[in-house]
Amino acid sequence: MRYAEFFLPTLKEVPAEAEVTSHQFMLRAGMIRKVASGIYSFLPLGLRALRKVENIIRQEMDRAGAQEVFLPSIQPAELWKETGRWETHGEELLRIKDRHARDFCYGPTHEEVVTDLVRREVRSYRELPLILYQIQTKFRDEIRPRFGLMRGREFCMKDAYSFDADEEGARESYRKVFEAYKRIFTRLGLAFRAVEADTGNIGGSFSHEFMVLAESGEDSIVFCTGCDYAANVEKAGIGQASPVEDADRKADLELVKTPGKKTVEDVTRFLGVPPERLIKTLICRAGDREAAVLVRGDREVNEFKLREALGSGKVRLASTEEVQEITGVPAGYLGPVGMKLPLYADREVAGMKDAVAGANRVDHHFLHVDPGRDLQGAVFADLRNAEAGDPCPRCGAGMEKKRGIEVGHVFMLGTTYSEPMRAVYLDRDGREQTIRMGCFGIGVGRTLAAAIEQNHDRDGIRFPFPIAPFQVIITALNPAEKTIREASEGLYAALRGKGVEVLLDDRDERPGKKFKDADLIGIPLRVTIGQKNLKEGNVEIKLREETESRIVPLESALDRAMELIRAHDLSHA
Amino acid sequence: MRYAEFFLPTLKEVPAEAEVTSHQFMLRAGMIRKVASGIYSFLPLGLRALRKVENIIRQEMDRAGAQEVFLPSIQPAELWKETGRWETHGEELLRIKDRHARDFCYGPTHEEVVTDLVRREVRSYRELPLILYQIQTKFRDEIRPRFGLMRGREFCMKDAYSFDADEEGARESYRKVFEAYKRIFTRLGLAFRAVEADTGNIGGSFSHEFMVLAESGEDSIVFCTGCDYAANVEKAGIGQASPVEDADRKADLELVKTPGKKTVEDVTRFLGVPPERLIKTLICRAGDREAAVLVRGDREVNEFKLREALGSGKVRLASTEEVQEITGVPAGYLGPVGMKLPLYADREVAGMKDAVAGANRVDHHFLHVDPGRDLQGAVFADLRNAEAGDPCPRCGAGMEKKRGIEVGHVFMLGTTYSEPMRAVYLDRDGREQTIRMGCFGIGVGRTLAAAIEQNHDRDGIRFPFPIAPFQVIITALNPAEKTIREASEGLYAALRGKGVEVLLDDRDERPGKKFKDADLIGIPLRVTIGQKNLKEGNVEIKLREETESRIVPLESALDRAMELIRAHDLSHA
Repeated sequence: MRYAEFFLPTLKEVPAEAEVTSHQFMLRAGMIRKVASGIYSFLPLGLRALRKVENIIRQEMDRAGAQEVFLPSIQPAELWKETGRWETHGEELLRIKDRHARDFCYGPTHEEVVTDLVRREVRSYRELPLILYQIQTKFRDEIRPRFGLMRGREFCMKDAYSFDADEEGARESYRKVFEAYKRIFTRLGLAFRAVEADTGNIGGSFSHEFMVLAESGEDSIVFCTGCDYAANVEKAGIGQASPVEDADRKADLELVKTPGKKTVEDVTRFLGVPPERLIKTLICRAGDREAAVLVRGDREVNEFKLREALGSGKVRLASTEEVQEITGVPAGYLGPVGMKLPLYADREVAGMKDAVAGANRVDHHFLHVDPGRDLQGAVFADLRNAEAGDPCPRCGAGMEKKRGIEVGHVFMLGTTYSEPMRAVYLDRDGREQTIRMGCFGIGVGRTLAAAIEQNHDRDGIRFPFPIAPFQVIITALNPAEKTIREASEGLYAALRGKGVEVLLDDRDERPGKKFKDADLIGIPLRVTIGQKNLKEGNVEIKLREETESRIVPLESALDRAMELIRAHDLSHA
Repeated sequence: MRYAEFFLPTLKEVPAEAEVTSHQFMLRAGMIRKVASGIYSFLPLGLRALRKVENIIRQEMDRAGAQEVFLPSIQPAELWKETGRWETHGEELLRIKDRHARDFCYGPTHEEVVTDLVRREVRSYRELPLILYQIQTKFRDEIRPRFGLMRGREFCMKDAYSFDADEEGARESYRKVFEAYKRIFTRLGLAFRAVEADTGNIGGSFSHEFMVLAESGEDSIVFCTGCDYAANVEKAGIGQASPVEDADRKADLELVKTPGKKTVEDVTRFLGVPPERLIKTLICRAGDREAAVLVRGDREVNEFKLREALGSGKVRLASTEEVQEITGVPAGYLGPVGMKLPLYADREVAGMKDAVAGANRVDHHFLHVDPGRDLQGAVFADLRNAEAGDPCPRCGAGMEKKRGIEVGHVFMLGTTYSEPMRAVYLDRDGREQTIRMGCFGIGVGRTLAAAIEQNHDRDGIRFPFPIAPFQVIITALNPAEKTIREASEGLYAALRGKGVEVLLDDRDERPGKKFKDADLIGIPLRVTIGQKNLKEGNVEIKLREETESRIVPLESALDRAMELIRAHDLSHA
């Protein structure tokens, strides 16, 4: 493609509408333009990158044995009423009436439509398993669309649905798609983790999220440095630290005055101990029961884990007022010693030494608390959010904590949809059985945005080769000059002949402008052809991700470029 | 792809919902399924064929210098209000309110959105010309969706828009897309004609329709056998027939009684003359004027041409009651002799000999009417629909008449959209000028349906190679048999190794069922591997479009198949 003819309107200034980096750069690099809130047009550069993502997804879904279909965007309300989601789905569902006043919606997802298709066509166990997928435009009427493609209303999604005869088959389909997703994000050249996740409002029994690692991510995840364990902070387990032998003589409890010191920060500073020596005591309500929860001063209680430990779906931490009411002690002075409520202590608390804790008396704390001696009767369990450095629950190695952007989600659905919609098949013995389902999504535009969040610098995007709209940009400085034009055109033709996608910057613009645009749009390999080098028969080759460039003879530029592409392009991995 | 694993639910019976052939076969061949009126899901076989059409369109649009974009399906009402189409577009426009009660529509076309994009981004004549296109889902809320993909509500369309600095540039863009369309339909392997057409309600100055020839087509078109002239019947010109020298003595007019004979059929049968010797006389109203219109008895008046001849936009033929009121004579007895109204005669009437015409008197006609003698003062012009055998208006050769299905439409829009939306640029002299536009559509799903209307027989589809979801089907008879399985798998792998798309029918089904399904789904080349032939080391190769098959040695099956594909696949032409 010749830049002079290419519809690529770049912007110098950061548009006011864009809050996050990917949104800013996608606008500035002429990839997208806003049409209405949360609704964007893809311009040619943006669409080329989007198609790269789509194609790798398509290849890997096909390889996993999934079959591509294309379901309609406009869906009849009747199907959504069968699963009850017409009522429960709220205002995010864009509801539409046609000219005959019949109810439809713009599909935000396709469980109902695809389950309807399968229940009509599949009769026998011999037609299972089946995995159907599509790459398609969806609409979710977000109340506050933001961050460009990250949380748009109209967006491109790959959604897949598996249909199996039994639980074992469903797990196998899940595994296949899970592996396909790993290959997809690897081939896209992205750093990512597959984390255990909550099933949320899609329902079903278990699920994983695929997270692209980026500082700007909305989610916190931890992952092991020793094995492939990874999870959302809310969901992450924590391995047991090795017990420390402790033969020291324990000091006796000592009551000290801590007037007005209620917060972890105030108490520890006042007593001159680090927060990891304080036992934080909180009160929680589980239905009509109450309990005291103990965690180290620098830790956060994890309500999901608390729920599990208490065996109750409805657990919440008590407010300051409630604490006073339940215990008779103001919040800030609670502690395990003398506590009337059942004690639930985070496992880590068991290993604390010479700890500090509230004394269940206003303006007082205890020193020299020894969990082994003073927490008898407490239930010890994993009750806190995982943090960097915690041991992996699977292999015990240290874990890291990073921020991530959710780009894919796989769910084991079970019979959540097939049961109410009566999607059944006849088994070997001619008995009717309910089909087991899974569903699997990738936000295609979101993946592109996440790739940019992960790969950029101050000057612009740094596309990984597999997603790059062009692999090479030839920056012809002063292309009106005959030798430069000829060298540029020659290399342009040669690279294209090798199947490389090349953008030839043949514009009549200053070199500075050309370099700025090339950096902004993030083409991974730049070949600069200018008078000075060319006089000596050379051109400059530079990877976008490196600061150093190399000067190579014009005649070997093709080979060097091909070598660099082969070395860096993981899309065929 | 292995048939046993492929989601391809074929149907034996013709579904009641399907009226036309393409719709019947697309349902029976498991290509599509209805979700709601005019709304379909594409199953894997159908989607594969659709993608073939899309890809050829994409390649040729790119080759023509058009650039692919992807505009949103949900469009804000504000843009449609700027062009006035929010008010004029009626109920076919699917109107939507979002959660904030803002007005949107599901785009049935994208002139407004793309013009808005271009007016924001294009500043200078140097950024023109520009052709943008997309392949995308549209929605038109048809009052009576029918014929499957032929007139659906949700459908796949390629729409393109050209932007030029001046009329000359706009014509050049039009020409480029026109040529691209010719290549597209040629490469798709379809018999088609590009016909001159009316601009309809898109507006603009001139347009062509691309028609796939098929007996079931809704439109009548005529085209020259000598040159590439083609037009809709309504729009088609007719060349002048060479004048015939006529030295015969003319007989005098003779008044005869024709009691109760009013229709062309009754009169000519009663008088024993063929309809081509009757001069049919009709009355038309053009605003407040009236005129008599003369055409041969076997011809149809063309109201578009009449409008042009009378120089009035509002011309219509008078009803039976109006005829009596205007002329005082009952309809059926009108004629040119003694007619008080101005006479407009079709050119062909001038060459009629010894004609019959009404006598402007109830129950009477004249014999021996001689146009040269009796039609003095008449205006002669081309006033009728073209018919097979008529001379071409461009080259004079004979024309053919066929039925066609409109699959593409190209429009010269001029400033119809750019003027109200103020899409302007600065010319070389820094003056603001209005951008000239063209718009260009191809119904992608409709093209697929039209291809099937053109290519089928009683047993099913006969896909041209370029659109075929698979090029080859290997029908393994009794695949449980080791030799057959090995031969089938070997050929399957070998063909795939050559980049051929193959469906291996490895199902445990009777041969009859396999042959029926293969014919139904229309794969253009079938290789049958069965016990009887294989014993002699042979397999059977058959083109779907031929009735004869060839027996070839297994070891040369690959080469023969490749030869046949190369000979018949025009997609790379």
